[in-house]
Amino acid sequence: MRDKVRDFIIENKLIEKGDKILVALSGGPDSVCLLNVLYSLKEDFNIIIGAAHVNHMLRGDEALADEEYSKSLCKNLDIEFYVKKIDIDKISKEKNISHEMAGREERYKFFETIKNHHGYNKIAVAHNANDQAETIIMNMMRGTGIEGLCGIRSKREGGIIRPILCLSREEVELYCSSNNLEPRIDKSNLENIYSRNKVRLDIIPYMKENFNKDIINTLNRMANLIQVDNDFLEKETSDNFKVYCSNTSDALIISKEAFNLDRAIISRIIRKAFFEFTGKYSNFEMKHIYDVIELSKNTTNKRIDLTNNVLAENIYGDIYLKLKDNIIREYKEVVINKGELDNTDICYGNYNVRFNIIRNKNNIDFSKNVLIKYFDYDKIEERLVIRKRRNGDKMLPLGMKGNKKVKDIFMDLKIPVDERDKIPVLCFDNEIAWLVAHKVSEKFKITKETKNIIKITFARKG
Amino acid sequence: MRDKVRDFIIENKLIEKGDKILVALSGGPDSVCLLNVLYSLKEDFNIIIGAAHVNHMLRGDEALADEEYSKSLCKNLDIEFYVKKIDIDKISKEKNISHEMAGREERYKFFETIKNHHGYNKIAVAHNANDQAETIIMNMMRGTGIEGLCGIRSKREGGIIRPILCLSREEVELYCSSNNLEPRIDKSNLENIYSRNKVRLDIIPYMKENFNKDIINTLNRMANLIQVDNDFLEKETSDNFKVYCSNTSDALIISKEAFNLDRAIISRIIRKAFFEFTGKYSNFEMKHIYDVIELSKNTTNKRIDLTNNVLAENIYGDIYLKLKDNIIREYKEVVINKGELDNTDICYGNYNVRFNIIRNKNNIDFSKNVLIKYFDYDKIEERLVIRKRRNGDKMLPLGMKGNKKVKDIFMDLKIPVDERDKIPVLCFDNEIAWLVAHKVSEKFKITKETKNIIKITFARKG
Repeated sequence: MRDKVRDFIIENKLIEKGDKILVALSGGPDSVCLLNVLYSLKEDFNIIIGAAHVNHMLRGDEALADEEYSKSLCKNLDIEFYVKKIDIDKISKEKNISHEMAGREERYKFFETIKNHHGYNKIAVAHNANDQAETIIMNMMRGTGIEGLCGIRSKREGGIIRPILCLSREEVELYCSSNNLEPRIDKSNLENIYSRNKVRLDIIPYMKENFNKDIINTLNRMANLIQVDNDFLEKETSDNFKVYCSNTSDALIISKEAFNLDRAIISRIIRKAFFEFTGKYSNFEMKHIYDVIELSKNTTNKRIDLTNNVLAENIYGDIYLKLKDNIIREYKEVVINKGELDNTDICYGNYNVRFNIIRNKNNIDFSKNVLIKYFDYDKIEERLVIRKRRNGDKMLPLGMKGNKKVKDIFMDLKIPVDERDKIPVLCFDNEIAWLVAHKVSEKFKITKETKNIIKITFARKG
Repeated sequence: MRDKVRDFIIENKLIEKGDKILVALSGGPDSVCLLNVLYSLKEDFNIIIGAAHVNHMLRGDEALADEEYSKSLCKNLDIEFYVKKIDIDKISKEKNISHEMAGREERYKFFETIKNHHGYNKIAVAHNANDQAETIIMNMMRGTGIEGLCGIRSKREGGIIRPILCLSREEVELYCSSNNLEPRIDKSNLENIYSRNKVRLDIIPYMKENFNKDIINTLNRMANLIQVDNDFLEKETSDNFKVYCSNTSDALIISKEAFNLDRAIISRIIRKAFFEFTGKYSNFEMKHIYDVIELSKNTTNKRIDLTNNVLAENIYGDIYLKLKDNIIREYKEVVINKGELDNTDICYGNYNVRFNIIRNKNNIDFSKNVLIKYFDYDKIEERLVIRKRRNGDKMLPLGMKGNKKVKDIFMDLKIPVDERDKIPVLCFDNEIAWLVAHKVSEKFKITKETKNIIKITFARKG
């Protein structure tokens, strides 16, 4: 089992020598197996392991016992242990979301915070091959394209890894019993278990008995094959997106040449454009993609409504994604104190803005989205400000030696005068760090000396 | 329903004006619905319709009643009706295959013959959306990549179309009852019904009840999305195959540069190379693809065994697919009389050879495989001969004005002397028509005047 996981880790490049890995530990069989297997591979990979446990406060004494079990497990292995009690019931009521969703959100938030503050670069979570098979069948029944059939990835952005995705539930249980581990609850109580249980207890056993004894592995092999195909399609999409898409202050443009690409690619480019423009996929469906493709064949300056308050307009064959103008947004100055920046969301004008502090600058997947930028956090003295442009604004653009008037920058970029007030000006204390979507400052860029990084994400609201 | 089918036909370009379509008619609800819907669209598309029925002689009087029903249906609609009695039980015993497989083979053979001899250019078969959903689930359980998740295509090479793939079984039944058609048996008795029935009667109803009422449409939509992706991947593969793969007299070469392509593409190129080399996929698995990719990283003239008596050899980084030399084949002259050529299979040396006569030259998908060629059938006087080269052999190569010695052609092509006896020389009567895999003759090529075409397919044997 240990060797199987090691091979899987190597094959999928989940771990590099020197990684510092935080294990998400619920106390159930999967995460207990994960922690122990990784522990046994510590020397092989030369890694440091820590574990983080969230007490969801949902099952009183039981939850406390899980916490105690996890703690003592880590103590015995001499592994750093981080724990947090979170009132998931309260949060789920406040946010009007399910326990499962609130639990997931809060867990990942906690893991992310521990990771950034204690210099971990990866988070290991404990999905197994049965979870994978169940996910694929659920996605298929719900309706999906090949993305959904990829199921759970062994590696995800943000340093999330799943080293025991290659083990079936039986293998996990066998590992636990033969190593005299006595895991607590099954982690399933933290998930949307109603539908999943039907797949787990009815559909998969039926398939196993009547069609294919090896159904779990069969579905996992299928997911692996499809992931390779999907990666290729995503790469083709991303390469073509760079060539054919561009941003203005208030629009994302898909140039007409893109519509000559294969349908598999232009569909994905349109989807990606919508995501880059709004920061989310919600309510965006295949129907909208077909509508945009149809629109591109139309040369009459036609507009169509998409979802999330976005419209698509055909201008000489190019497609412009724009926000509908019927919502008046406030461009009111926002001031945030340095100490309050981490994991904070705010609104400014047409944007949702999110701040994250990253303490370990290795293994950041720097985004190429023009609305996501990274700066040297320690160069903020007291506060961060987002505001409209002002007369006399100046900044030191990246790669330049002298200050430049913001007015001149706007002129160079050919941004119409009445658009300029809509462009957020982000300042560290009194100096401009970022003309959002257009120019970043040389002064606050990340250098070799940078210790802590602030990641700032703007997303257009629907 | 009629309009739904019409839209589906247009969207998928199944029918063009002037098509002459042969409907595969079993007498069951699906094919009866298909025949009637196409009949009602006759004027819209300006098409001619015929119907072909195979009596499988498996259920005595019942089968005869099916035949009679089909016949009278066609008579009432004034549709040309073709029928053949085939003793499927006998054939399945002779060939040691199932009734289902023998039935399918014989049906398609009969349809193909009628199509070619009576000037039809398409064959319409009656799969519906439920068949599609069932096929996808069965393929998934059996193990597949995205090809299997595409399910049944609405259009296949050889002019096969499936115009009612957009209708659910319920819709087909509703159509039949509301048009007072009284179809006979369900066609399912001609299929491998054991597994399919479990999917149809257990798995799909369970999914419908517990997860998604609209599961049939959901799975059909998934198949449509995946078909678009698969077509793109196949096109990329085929384009790259042309660039990176080549044939010699006894090997297919995948050049080393191909192994820098994305994994999704090189995997498919290897698979396609195996198919082009052997004419079949049988027993070729993902494992063999991985082995070839591994082999390409090895620069030591290493050889590995694949399946079907094929080996792969690394020569300076290029991969050669070759036949293993341990089987001695006879290169014995083969003579076939003109009247016996249609739908005939023979063996010659390392090859299986198949002949098909095509009476209607529109809508042929000319293959680019060097082992498949098309000639003017009417230029054969008495017989076709396949033999070894002989001293003094001459031919008129395509595009040239004078005869050339075969010996010189071999020299120009740099084919080693000891390979030359292995190259089949195909003659129409006493003249060379084709040096197989290398040169075709100007004399027998297809011209505007050609009426009947002979398609000759060589496939290397494992």
